[in-house]
Amino acid sequence: MNDWSSINTYAKKWIREAGALIRESFSTELMIQSKSTPNDLVTNMDQETEKYFINKITSTFPEHRILGEEGFGDQVTSLEGVVWIIDPIDGTMNFVHQQRNFAISIGIFEDGIGQIGLIYDVVSDELYHAVKGQGAYFNEKRLPELETVEIEKAIVGINTTWVTENKRIDHSILTPLVKKVRGTRSYGSAAIELAYVAAGRLDMYITMRLSPWDFAAGLILIEEVGGKVTTIEGKPLNLVEQNSVFACNASLHDHVIENYIKQEDLE
Amino acid sequence: MNDWSSINTYAKKWIREAGALIRESFSTELMIQSKSTPNDLVTNMDQETEKYFINKITSTFPEHRILGEEGFGDQVTSLEGVVWIIDPIDGTMNFVHQQRNFAISIGIFEDGIGQIGLIYDVVSDELYHAVKGQGAYFNEKRLPELETVEIEKAIVGINTTWVTENKRIDHSILTPLVKKVRGTRSYGSAAIELAYVAAGRLDMYITMRLSPWDFAAGLILIEEVGGKVTTIEGKPLNLVEQNSVFACNASLHDHVIENYIKQEDLE
Repeated sequence: MNDWSSINTYAKKWIREAGALIRESFSTELMIQSKSTPNDLVTNMDQETEKYFINKITSTFPEHRILGEEGFGDQVTSLEGVVWIIDPIDGTMNFVHQQRNFAISIGIFEDGIGQIGLIYDVVSDELYHAVKGQGAYFNEKRLPELETVEIEKAIVGINTTWVTENKRIDHSILTPLVKKVRGTRSYGSAAIELAYVAAGRLDMYITMRLSPWDFAAGLILIEEVGGKVTTIEGKPLNLVEQNSVFACNASLHDHVIENYIKQEDLE
Repeated sequence: MNDWSSINTYAKKWIREAGALIRESFSTELMIQSKSTPNDLVTNMDQETEKYFINKITSTFPEHRILGEEGFGDQVTSLEGVVWIIDPIDGTMNFVHQQRNFAISIGIFEDGIGQIGLIYDVVSDELYHAVKGQGAYFNEKRLPELETVEIEKAIVGINTTWVTENKRIDHSILTPLVKKVRGTRSYGSAAIELAYVAAGRLDMYITMRLSPWDFAAGLILIEEVGGKVTTIEGKPLNLVEQNSVFACNASLHDHVIENYIKQEDLE
Protein backbone atom coordinates (compact mmCIF):
# COMPACT_ATOMS: atom_id res chain seq x y z
CA MET A 1 0.00 0.00 0.00
CA ASN A 2 1.22 3.47 -0.84
CA ASP A 3 2.15 5.89 1.92
CA TRP A 4 0.44 8.99 0.51
CA SER A 5 1.54 11.14 3.39
CA SER A 6 5.17 10.36 2.58
CA ILE A 7 4.66 10.82 -1.18
CA ASN A 8 2.97 14.15 -0.43
CA THR A 9 5.89 15.33 1.71
CA TYR A 10 8.39 14.52 -1.04
CA ALA A 11 6.23 16.08 -3.77
CA LYS A 12 5.88 19.36 -1.89
CA LYS A 13 9.61 19.47 -1.13
CA TRP A 14 10.61 18.77 -4.72
CA ILE A 15 8.18 21.24 -6.29
CA ARG A 16 9.49 24.06 -4.11
CA GLU A 17 13.10 23.09 -4.84
CA ALA A 18 12.43 22.96 -8.59
CA GLY A 19 10.75 26.36 -8.38
CA ALA A 20 13.79 27.81 -6.63
CA LEU A 21 16.02 26.49 -9.44
CA ILE A 22 13.77 28.14 -12.03
CA ARG A 23 13.87 31.45 -10.16
CA GLU A 24 17.67 31.24 -10.04
CA SER A 25 17.72 30.62 -13.80
CA PHE A 26 16.39 34.13 -14.46
CA SER A 27 19.90 35.46 -14.12
CA THR A 28 21.24 33.11 -16.83
CA GLU A 29 20.40 33.09 -20.50
CA LEU A 30 17.31 31.29 -21.65
CA MET A 31 17.42 28.95 -24.66
CA ILE A 32 14.11 28.93 -26.47
CA GLN A 33 12.98 26.44 -29.10
CA SER A 34 9.58 26.00 -30.66
CA LYS A 35 7.91 22.61 -30.92
CA SER A 36 4.99 21.92 -33.25
CA THR A 37 4.25 25.56 -34.08
CA PRO A 38 6.15 28.82 -33.62
CA ASN A 39 3.89 29.58 -30.66
CA ASP A 40 4.45 26.25 -28.91
CA LEU A 41 7.55 27.29 -27.06
CA VAL A 42 9.88 25.17 -24.99
CA THR A 43 12.95 26.25 -23.12
CA ASN A 44 15.93 24.53 -21.59
CA MET A 45 14.31 25.17 -18.21
CA ASP A 46 11.18 23.20 -19.17
CA GLN A 47 13.43 20.29 -20.02
CA GLU A 48 15.81 20.59 -17.07
CA THR A 49 12.92 20.87 -14.63
CA GLU A 50 11.24 17.75 -15.97
CA LYS A 51 14.53 15.83 -15.70
CA TYR A 52 14.89 17.09 -12.12
CA PHE A 53 11.57 15.50 -11.16
CA ILE A 54 12.32 12.27 -13.05
CA ASN A 55 15.60 11.85 -11.19
CA LYS A 56 13.97 12.46 -7.80
CA ILE A 57 10.95 10.25 -8.42
CA THR A 58 12.74 7.28 -10.00
CA SER A 59 15.37 7.16 -7.24
CA THR A 60 12.83 7.45 -4.40
CA PHE A 61 9.83 5.61 -5.86
CA PRO A 62 11.26 3.31 -8.56
CA GLU A 63 7.90 1.62 -9.19
CA HIS A 64 6.12 4.88 -10.01
CA ARG A 65 5.71 5.96 -13.62
CA ILE A 66 5.97 9.51 -14.99
CA LEU A 67 4.01 11.23 -17.76
CA GLY A 68 5.69 14.56 -18.49
CA GLU A 69 5.09 17.25 -21.06
CA GLU A 70 8.65 17.20 -22.36
CA GLY A 71 8.60 13.44 -22.95
CA PHE A 72 11.58 12.41 -20.83
CA GLY A 73 9.39 10.18 -18.67
CA ASP A 74 7.67 6.90 -19.46
CA GLN A 75 5.45 6.02 -22.39
CA VAL A 76 2.19 6.19 -20.49
CA THR A 77 -0.94 5.08 -22.34
CA SER A 78 -2.91 3.82 -19.35
CA LEU A 79 -2.98 4.68 -15.66
CA GLU A 80 -2.31 1.40 -13.83
CA GLY A 81 -0.31 1.81 -10.62
CA VAL A 82 1.01 5.18 -9.51
CA VAL A 83 1.57 7.77 -12.24
CA TRP A 84 2.95 11.28 -11.76
CA ILE A 85 1.59 13.61 -14.45
CA ILE A 86 3.92 16.60 -14.66
CA ASP A 87 4.09 19.90 -16.45
CA PRO A 88 7.47 21.35 -15.49
CA ILE A 89 6.53 24.86 -16.69
CA ASP A 90 2.87 25.46 -17.45
CA GLY A 91 2.59 28.81 -19.20
CA THR A 92 5.87 28.74 -21.10
CA MET A 93 4.86 31.80 -23.12
CA ASN A 94 4.48 33.74 -19.86
CA PHE A 95 7.79 32.30 -18.64
CA VAL A 96 9.54 33.59 -21.78
CA HIS A 97 7.79 36.96 -22.07
CA GLN A 98 7.02 37.87 -18.48
CA GLN A 99 9.23 35.79 -16.19
CA ARG A 100 6.09 35.31 -14.08
CA ASN A 101 2.57 33.84 -14.20
CA PHE A 102 3.72 30.27 -14.86
CA ALA A 103 3.47 27.21 -12.65
CA ILE A 104 4.77 23.72 -12.02
CA SER A 105 1.83 21.31 -12.12
CA ILE A 106 1.91 17.81 -10.65
CA GLY A 107 -0.99 15.37 -10.39
CA ILE A 108 -0.36 11.98 -8.80
CA PHE A 109 -2.80 9.23 -9.73
CA GLU A 110 -3.24 5.62 -8.56
CA ASP A 111 -5.07 3.35 -10.98
CA GLY A 112 -6.59 6.46 -12.56
CA ILE A 113 -7.79 8.02 -9.28
CA GLY A 114 -6.33 11.42 -8.41
CA GLN A 115 -4.58 11.28 -5.02
CA ILE A 116 -2.39 14.38 -4.82
CA GLY A 117 -2.51 17.64 -6.79
CA LEU A 118 0.08 20.41 -6.60
CA ILE A 119 0.25 23.68 -8.53
CA TYR A 120 3.16 25.94 -7.67
CA ASP A 121 3.10 29.53 -8.91
CA VAL A 122 6.86 29.84 -8.97
CA VAL A 123 7.43 33.61 -8.92
CA SER A 124 4.63 34.38 -6.47
CA ASP A 125 5.86 31.48 -4.31
CA GLU A 126 2.27 30.27 -3.93
CA LEU A 127 1.55 26.57 -3.56
CA TYR A 128 -1.92 25.18 -4.19
CA HIS A 129 -2.14 21.67 -2.94
CA ALA A 130 -4.66 18.88 -2.26
CA VAL A 131 -4.64 15.32 -0.96
CA LYS A 132 -7.75 13.32 -1.86
CA GLY A 133 -10.27 13.46 0.98
CA GLN A 134 -8.19 15.86 3.05
CA GLY A 135 -9.14 19.17 1.39
CA ALA A 136 -7.31 21.67 -0.75
CA TYR A 137 -4.85 24.26 0.53
CA PHE A 138 -3.38 27.57 -0.57
CA ASN A 139 -0.01 28.03 1.11
CA GLU A 140 -1.10 25.67 3.92
CA LYS A 141 -4.35 27.61 4.46
CA ARG A 142 -7.41 25.46 3.84
CA LEU A 143 -9.51 26.52 0.86
CA PRO A 144 -13.23 26.55 1.65
CA GLU A 145 -15.81 24.58 -0.34
CA LEU A 146 -16.96 26.63 -3.33
CA GLU A 147 -20.14 28.59 -2.64
CA THR A 148 -23.15 28.87 -4.92
CA VAL A 149 -22.69 31.58 -7.54
CA GLU A 150 -25.23 33.20 -9.86
CA ILE A 151 -24.28 33.25 -13.52
CA GLU A 152 -24.60 37.06 -13.65
CA LYS A 153 -21.95 37.37 -10.95
CA ALA A 154 -19.52 34.79 -12.33
CA ILE A 155 -15.96 35.55 -13.41
CA VAL A 156 -14.86 33.28 -16.26
CA GLY A 157 -11.36 32.32 -17.33
CA ILE A 158 -11.44 32.15 -21.12
CA ASN A 159 -9.06 33.30 -23.84
CA THR A 160 -10.10 35.47 -26.81
CA THR A 161 -9.18 32.47 -29.00
CA TRP A 162 -12.46 30.69 -28.17
CA VAL A 163 -14.75 33.63 -28.91
CA THR A 164 -13.08 34.42 -32.24
CA GLU A 165 -12.89 32.13 -35.27
CA ASN A 166 -10.89 29.02 -34.39
CA LYS A 167 -10.51 25.39 -35.39
CA ARG A 168 -12.10 23.77 -32.36
CA ILE A 169 -15.43 25.38 -31.58
CA ASP A 170 -17.95 27.59 -33.37
CA HIS A 171 -17.07 30.89 -31.71
CA SER A 172 -20.71 31.97 -31.59
CA ILE A 173 -21.42 29.25 -28.98
CA LEU A 174 -19.42 30.81 -26.16
CA THR A 175 -20.20 34.46 -27.00
CA PRO A 176 -23.57 34.58 -25.17
CA LEU A 177 -21.85 33.13 -22.09
CA VAL A 178 -19.11 35.77 -21.95
CA LYS A 179 -21.81 38.44 -22.43
CA LYS A 180 -23.93 37.03 -19.58
CA VAL A 181 -21.27 36.77 -16.88
CA ARG A 182 -19.82 39.63 -14.84
CA GLY A 183 -16.38 39.44 -16.43
CA THR A 184 -13.74 37.37 -18.17
CA ARG A 185 -10.05 36.97 -17.47
CA SER A 186 -7.15 35.21 -19.20
CA TYR A 187 -3.83 34.54 -17.48
CA GLY A 188 -2.06 32.29 -19.98
CA SER A 189 -1.42 29.33 -17.67
CA ALA A 190 -4.06 26.60 -17.45
CA ALA A 191 -2.61 25.41 -14.16
CA ILE A 192 -2.90 28.86 -12.58
CA GLU A 193 -6.40 29.31 -14.00
CA LEU A 194 -7.49 25.94 -12.57
CA ALA A 195 -5.92 26.86 -9.22
CA TYR A 196 -7.93 30.11 -9.36
CA VAL A 197 -11.12 28.09 -9.85
CA ALA A 198 -10.19 25.99 -6.81
CA ALA A 199 -9.56 29.17 -4.80
CA GLY A 200 -12.90 30.70 -5.91
CA ARG A 201 -11.17 33.58 -7.74
CA LEU A 202 -12.59 32.36 -11.04
CA ASP A 203 -15.97 30.62 -11.14
CA MET A 204 -15.22 28.82 -14.40
CA TYR A 205 -12.37 28.10 -16.75
CA ILE A 206 -13.03 27.05 -20.32
CA THR A 207 -10.52 25.94 -22.92
CA MET A 208 -10.78 23.77 -25.99
CA ARG A 209 -7.53 21.82 -25.89
CA LEU A 210 -5.40 20.78 -22.96
CA SER A 211 -3.04 17.89 -22.44
CA PRO A 212 -3.20 15.75 -19.29
CA TRP A 213 -0.19 17.51 -17.72
CA ASP A 214 -2.02 20.85 -18.06
CA PHE A 215 -5.07 19.79 -16.04
CA ALA A 216 -4.08 16.75 -13.93
CA ALA A 217 -3.30 18.69 -10.76
CA GLY A 218 -6.11 21.21 -11.21
CA LEU A 219 -8.65 18.40 -11.54
CA ILE A 220 -7.70 17.03 -8.12
CA LEU A 221 -7.65 20.46 -6.48
CA ILE A 222 -11.03 21.53 -7.85
CA GLU A 223 -12.80 18.27 -7.00
CA GLU A 224 -11.49 18.59 -3.46
CA VAL A 225 -13.38 21.90 -3.00
CA GLY A 226 -16.58 20.55 -4.56
CA GLY A 227 -16.10 21.85 -8.11
CA LYS A 228 -16.58 19.91 -11.33
CA VAL A 229 -14.06 19.39 -14.13
CA THR A 230 -15.22 17.74 -17.36
CA THR A 231 -14.92 18.17 -21.10
CA ILE A 232 -16.98 20.99 -22.56
CA GLU A 233 -19.72 18.44 -23.27
CA GLY A 234 -19.77 17.39 -19.62
CA LYS A 235 -17.92 14.10 -20.13
CA PRO A 236 -15.13 12.79 -17.87
CA LEU A 237 -11.62 13.89 -18.86
CA ASN A 238 -9.34 11.32 -20.48
CA LEU A 239 -6.05 11.45 -18.59
CA VAL A 240 -3.85 10.13 -21.38
CA GLU A 241 -5.23 12.28 -24.23
CA GLN A 242 -5.97 15.88 -25.14
CA ASN A 243 -9.38 17.17 -24.02
CA SER A 244 -11.49 20.26 -24.00
CA VAL A 245 -11.74 21.34 -20.35
CA PHE A 246 -14.64 22.95 -18.51
CA ALA A 247 -13.74 23.52 -14.86
CA CYS A 248 -16.57 25.04 -12.90
CA ASN A 249 -18.18 25.88 -9.64
CA ALA A 250 -20.62 22.95 -9.24
CA SER A 251 -23.59 25.30 -8.87
CA LEU A 252 -23.08 26.54 -12.45
CA HIS A 253 -21.63 23.52 -14.26
CA ASP A 254 -24.76 21.80 -15.58
CA HIS A 255 -26.58 25.11 -16.13
CA VAL A 256 -23.83 26.39 -18.41
CA ILE A 257 -23.63 23.18 -20.44
CA GLU A 258 -27.41 22.97 -20.90
CA ASN A 259 -28.10 26.65 -21.57
CA TYR A 260 -25.01 27.80 -23.42
CA ILE A 261 -22.74 25.08 -24.72
CA LYS A 262 -25.47 22.67 -25.88
CA GLN A 263 -27.85 25.44 -26.93
CA GLU A 264 -27.14 24.83 -30.61
CA ASP A 265 -28.20 21.20 -30.33
CA LEU A 266 -31.46 22.16 -28.66
CA GLU A 267 -32.54 24.60 -31.34
CA MET B 1 8.31 76.00 -8.43
CA ASN B 2 7.25 72.54 -7.41
CA ASP B 3 9.67 70.27 -5.63
CA TRP B 4 8.96 67.06 -7.57
CA SER B 5 11.44 65.06 -5.54
CA SER B 6 9.54 65.91 -2.36
CA ILE B 7 6.12 65.28 -3.97
CA ASN B 8 7.44 61.94 -5.21
CA THR B 9 8.65 60.93 -1.76
CA TYR B 10 5.25 61.69 -0.22
CA ALA B 11 3.33 59.97 -3.03
CA LYS B 12 5.34 56.75 -2.67
CA LYS B 13 4.94 56.79 1.11
CA TRP B 14 1.19 57.38 0.96
CA ILE B 15 0.52 54.79 -1.75
CA ARG B 16 2.28 52.08 0.28
CA GLU B 17 0.46 53.14 3.46
CA ALA B 18 -2.91 53.09 1.70
CA GLY B 19 -2.09 49.64 0.29
CA ALA B 20 -1.31 48.37 3.78
CA LEU B 21 -4.70 49.63 5.00
CA ILE B 22 -6.44 47.82 2.14
CA ARG B 23 -4.59 44.58 2.93
CA GLU B 24 -5.62 44.89 6.58
CA SER B 25 -9.24 45.37 5.48
CA PHE B 26 -9.36 41.79 4.16
CA SER B 27 -10.05 40.60 7.67
CA THR B 28 -13.09 42.87 8.05
CA GLU B 29 -16.33 42.67 6.13
CA LEU B 30 -16.58 44.38 2.78
CA MET B 31 -19.55 46.58 1.89
CA ILE B 32 -20.26 46.45 -1.82
CA GLN B 33 -22.49 48.80 -3.77
CA SER B 34 -22.95 49.09 -7.49
CA LYS B 35 -22.82 52.39 -9.29
CA SER B 36 -24.20 52.89 -12.80
CA THR B 37 -24.62 49.19 -13.63
CA PRO B 38 -24.63 46.01 -11.54
CA ASN B 39 -21.11 45.33 -12.80
CA ASP B 40 -19.74 48.74 -11.86
CA LEU B 41 -18.89 47.86 -8.30
CA VAL B 42 -17.70 50.14 -5.56
CA THR B 43 -16.80 49.22 -2.03
CA ASN B 44 -16.31 51.10 1.20
CA MET B 45 -12.57 50.55 0.69
CA ASP B 46 -12.61 52.40 -2.65
CA GLN B 47 -14.18 55.34 -0.89
CA GLU B 48 -12.09 55.20 2.28
CA THR B 49 -8.87 54.94 0.27
CA GLU B 50 -9.74 57.96 -1.85
CA LYS B 51 -10.52 59.98 1.28
CA TYR B 52 -7.19 58.87 2.76
CA PHE B 53 -5.33 60.42 -0.19
CA ILE B 54 -7.44 63.58 -0.18
CA ASN B 55 -6.68 64.17 3.50
CA LYS B 56 -2.95 63.65 2.99
CA ILE B 57 -2.69 65.75 -0.17
CA THR B 58 -4.83 68.70 0.94
CA SER B 59 -3.00 69.01 4.27
CA THR B 60 0.50 68.76 2.72
CA PHE B 61 -0.04 70.44 -0.65
CA PRO B 62 -3.11 72.66 -0.21
CA GLU B 63 -2.76 74.25 -3.66
CA HIS B 64 -2.88 70.87 -5.47
CA ARG B 65 -6.19 69.65 -6.91
CA ILE B 66 -7.46 66.08 -6.92
CA LEU B 67 -9.46 64.18 -9.55
CA GLY B 68 -10.57 60.89 -8.03
CA GLU B 69 -12.75 58.07 -9.27
CA GLU B 70 -15.07 58.17 -6.27
CA GLY B 71 -15.73 61.89 -6.65
CA PHE B 72 -14.63 63.11 -3.20
CA GLY B 73 -11.97 65.34 -4.74
CA ASP B 74 -12.32 68.52 -6.74
CA GLN B 75 -14.47 69.24 -9.78
CA VAL B 76 -11.67 69.03 -12.32
CA THR B 77 -12.51 69.99 -15.90
CA SER B 78 -9.11 71.33 -16.93
CA LEU B 79 -5.56 70.60 -15.86
CA GLU B 80 -4.10 73.96 -14.80
CA GLY B 81 -1.66 73.74 -11.91
CA VAL B 82 -0.87 70.46 -10.17
CA VAL B 83 -3.57 67.78 -10.34
CA TRP B 84 -3.43 64.34 -8.74
CA ILE B 85 -5.52 61.88 -10.77
CA ILE B 86 -6.32 58.96 -8.48
CA ASP B 87 -7.98 55.59 -8.75
CA PRO B 88 -8.04 54.28 -5.16
CA ILE B 89 -8.77 50.71 -6.28
CA ASP B 90 -8.38 49.97 -9.98
CA GLY B 91 -9.88 46.54 -10.63
CA THR B 92 -12.67 46.64 -8.07
CA MET B 93 -14.19 43.45 -9.51
CA ASN B 94 -10.93 41.64 -8.82
CA PHE B 95 -10.79 43.22 -5.36
CA VAL B 96 -14.27 41.89 -4.58
CA HIS B 97 -13.94 38.46 -6.20
CA GLN B 98 -10.26 37.66 -5.82
CA GLN B 99 -8.81 39.88 -3.12
CA ARG B 100 -5.86 40.35 -5.50
CA ASN B 101 -4.96 41.71 -8.94
CA PHE B 102 -6.04 45.28 -8.19
CA ALA B 103 -3.95 48.43 -7.89
CA ILE B 104 -3.85 51.97 -6.61
CA SER B 105 -3.13 54.29 -9.53
CA ILE B 106 -1.86 57.85 -9.15
CA GLY B 107 -0.81 60.20 -11.94
CA ILE B 108 0.40 63.68 -11.01
CA PHE B 109 0.20 66.32 -13.72
CA GLU B 110 1.33 69.94 -13.94
CA ASP B 111 -0.49 72.06 -16.50
CA GLY B 112 -1.45 68.84 -18.29
CA ILE B 113 2.08 67.39 -18.40
CA GLY B 114 2.58 64.07 -16.60
CA GLN B 115 5.27 64.42 -13.92
CA ILE B 116 4.89 61.38 -11.64
CA GLY B 117 3.15 58.06 -12.20
CA LEU B 118 2.63 55.37 -9.57
CA ILE B 119 0.85 52.04 -9.85
CA TYR B 120 0.86 49.89 -6.74
CA ASP B 121 -0.21 46.25 -7.03
CA VAL B 122 -1.38 46.05 -3.44
CA VAL B 123 -1.39 42.30 -2.74
CA SER B 124 1.81 41.54 -4.65
CA ASP B 125 3.40 44.57 -2.93
CA GLU B 126 4.81 45.67 -6.28
CA LEU B 127 5.28 49.38 -7.02
CA TYR B 128 5.68 50.64 -10.57
CA HIS B 129 6.83 54.18 -10.54
CA ALA B 130 8.15 56.93 -12.86
CA VAL B 131 9.26 60.53 -12.60
CA LYS B 132 9.31 62.40 -15.91
CA GLY B 133 12.77 62.32 -17.45
CA GLN B 134 14.19 60.06 -14.74
CA GLY B 135 12.99 56.66 -16.01
CA ALA B 136 10.48 54.12 -14.81
CA TYR B 137 11.04 51.67 -11.99
CA PHE B 138 9.64 48.36 -10.79
CA ASN B 139 10.24 48.07 -7.04
CA GLU B 140 13.16 50.51 -7.35
CA LYS B 141 14.71 48.49 -10.20
CA ARG B 142 14.98 50.54 -13.38
CA LEU B 143 12.80 49.29 -16.23
CA PRO B 144 14.68 49.18 -19.54
CA GLU B 145 13.51 50.99 -22.67
CA LEU B 146 11.06 48.78 -24.57
CA GLU B 147 12.74 46.75 -27.31
CA THR B 148 11.48 46.30 -30.85
CA VAL B 149 8.93 43.48 -31.08
CA GLU B 150 7.54 41.69 -34.14
CA ILE B 151 3.77 41.55 -34.34
CA GLU B 152 3.85 37.73 -34.52
CA LYS B 153 5.64 37.60 -31.16
CA ALA B 154 3.52 40.19 -29.38
CA ILE B 155 1.43 39.50 -26.28
CA VAL B 156 -1.68 41.67 -26.18
CA GLY B 157 -3.79 42.66 -23.20
CA ILE B 158 -7.38 42.69 -24.41
CA ASN B 159 -10.65 41.50 -22.92
CA THR B 160 -13.10 39.19 -24.71
CA THR B 161 -15.56 42.13 -24.62
CA TRP B 162 -13.83 43.84 -27.55
CA VAL B 163 -13.76 40.82 -29.86
CA THR B 164 -17.42 39.94 -29.25
CA GLU B 165 -20.43 42.09 -30.06
CA ASN B 166 -20.29 45.30 -28.00
CA LYS B 167 -21.47 48.90 -28.11
CA ARG B 168 -18.14 50.60 -28.76
CA ILE B 169 -16.34 48.90 -31.65
CA ASP B 170 -17.22 46.57 -34.48
CA HIS B 171 -15.82 43.37 -33.02
CA SER B 172 -14.56 42.19 -36.40
CA ILE B 173 -11.94 44.98 -36.41
CA LEU B 174 -9.81 43.61 -33.59
CA THR B 175 -10.27 39.91 -34.43
CA PRO B 176 -7.51 39.77 -37.10
CA LEU B 177 -5.12 41.39 -34.59
CA VAL B 178 -5.74 38.83 -31.85
CA LYS B 179 -5.30 36.07 -34.43
CA LYS B 180 -2.00 37.53 -35.67
CA VAL B 181 -0.24 37.98 -32.33
CA ARG B 182 1.35 35.26 -30.21
CA GLY B 183 -1.20 35.46 -27.43
CA THR B 184 -3.72 37.55 -25.51
CA ARG B 185 -4.18 38.07 -21.80
CA SER B 186 -6.75 39.85 -19.63
CA TYR B 187 -6.13 40.69 -15.99
CA GLY B 188 -9.12 42.89 -15.15
CA SER B 189 -7.19 45.95 -13.98
CA ALA B 190 -6.27 48.62 -16.54
CA ALA B 191 -3.60 49.99 -14.21
CA ILE B 192 -1.91 46.60 -13.88
CA GLU B 193 -2.19 45.99 -17.62
CA LEU B 194 -0.61 49.38 -18.35
CA ALA B 195 2.13 48.63 -15.80
CA TYR B 196 2.71 45.32 -17.63
CA VAL B 197 3.15 47.23 -20.91
CA ALA B 198 5.70 49.50 -19.20
CA ALA B 199 7.51 46.41 -17.87
CA GLY B 200 7.52 44.73 -21.32
CA ARG B 201 5.33 41.84 -20.11
CA LEU B 202 2.57 42.88 -22.49
CA ASP B 203 3.46 44.50 -25.81
CA MET B 204 0.08 46.20 -26.15
CA TYR B 205 -3.05 46.89 -24.18
CA ILE B 206 -6.29 47.79 -25.91
CA THR B 207 -9.56 48.85 -24.34
CA MET B 208 -12.46 50.90 -25.61
CA ARG B 209 -13.41 52.92 -22.54
CA LEU B 210 -11.29 54.16 -19.69
CA SER B 211 -11.60 57.15 -17.40
CA PRO B 212 -8.61 59.41 -16.68
CA TRP B 213 -7.97 57.80 -13.27
CA ASP B 214 -7.64 54.40 -14.99
CA PHE B 215 -4.83 55.44 -17.35
CA ALA B 216 -3.22 58.61 -15.90
CA ALA B 217 -0.38 56.81 -14.11
CA GLY B 218 0.12 54.20 -16.85
CA LEU B 219 0.50 56.91 -19.47
CA ILE B 220 3.43 58.46 -17.59
CA LEU B 221 5.08 55.09 -16.91
CA ILE B 222 4.83 53.89 -20.50
CA GLU B 223 6.07 57.11 -22.07
CA GLU B 224 9.05 56.98 -19.73
CA VAL B 225 10.18 53.63 -21.25
CA GLY B 226 9.61 54.82 -24.83
CA GLY B 227 6.11 53.38 -25.38
CA LYS B 228 3.13 55.18 -26.89
CA VAL B 229 -0.31 55.66 -25.35
CA THR B 230 -3.08 57.14 -27.49
CA THR B 231 -6.72 56.56 -28.30
CA ILE B 232 -7.40 53.63 -30.60
CA GLU B 233 -7.34 56.07 -33.54
CA GLY B 234 -3.88 57.27 -32.53
CA LYS B 235 -5.01 60.59 -31.05
CA PRO B 236 -3.74 62.06 -27.76
CA LEU B 237 -5.72 61.05 -24.67
CA ASN B 238 -8.02 63.60 -23.08
CA LEU B 239 -7.21 63.65 -19.37
CA VAL B 240 -10.58 64.91 -18.17
CA GLU B 241 -12.83 62.59 -20.25
CA GLN B 242 -13.34 58.95 -21.09
CA ASN B 243 -11.22 57.61 -23.94
CA SER B 244 -10.46 54.45 -25.82
CA VAL B 245 -6.87 53.53 -24.93
CA PHE B 246 -4.20 51.90 -27.07
CA ALA B 247 -0.99 51.52 -25.09
CA CYS B 248 1.78 49.99 -27.12
CA ASN B 249 5.40 49.26 -27.65
CA ALA B 250 6.43 52.10 -29.98
CA SER B 251 7.75 49.68 -32.61
CA LEU B 252 4.22 48.33 -33.15
CA HIS B 253 1.97 51.31 -32.43
CA ASP B 254 1.60 52.87 -35.88
CA HIS B 255 1.73 49.49 -37.65
CA VAL B 256 -1.24 48.21 -35.65
CA ILE B 257 -3.33 51.33 -36.20
CA GLU B 258 -2.63 51.42 -39.94
CA ASN B 259 -2.96 47.70 -40.66
CA TYR B 260 -5.61 46.54 -38.20
CA ILE B 261 -7.61 49.29 -36.56
CA LYS B 262 -7.95 51.54 -39.61
CA GLN B 263 -8.16 48.63 -42.07
CA GLU B 264 -11.91 49.12 -42.53
CA ASP B 265 -11.43 52.69 -43.68
CA LEU B 266 -8.82 51.66 -46.21
CA GLU B 267 -10.98 49.04 -47.89
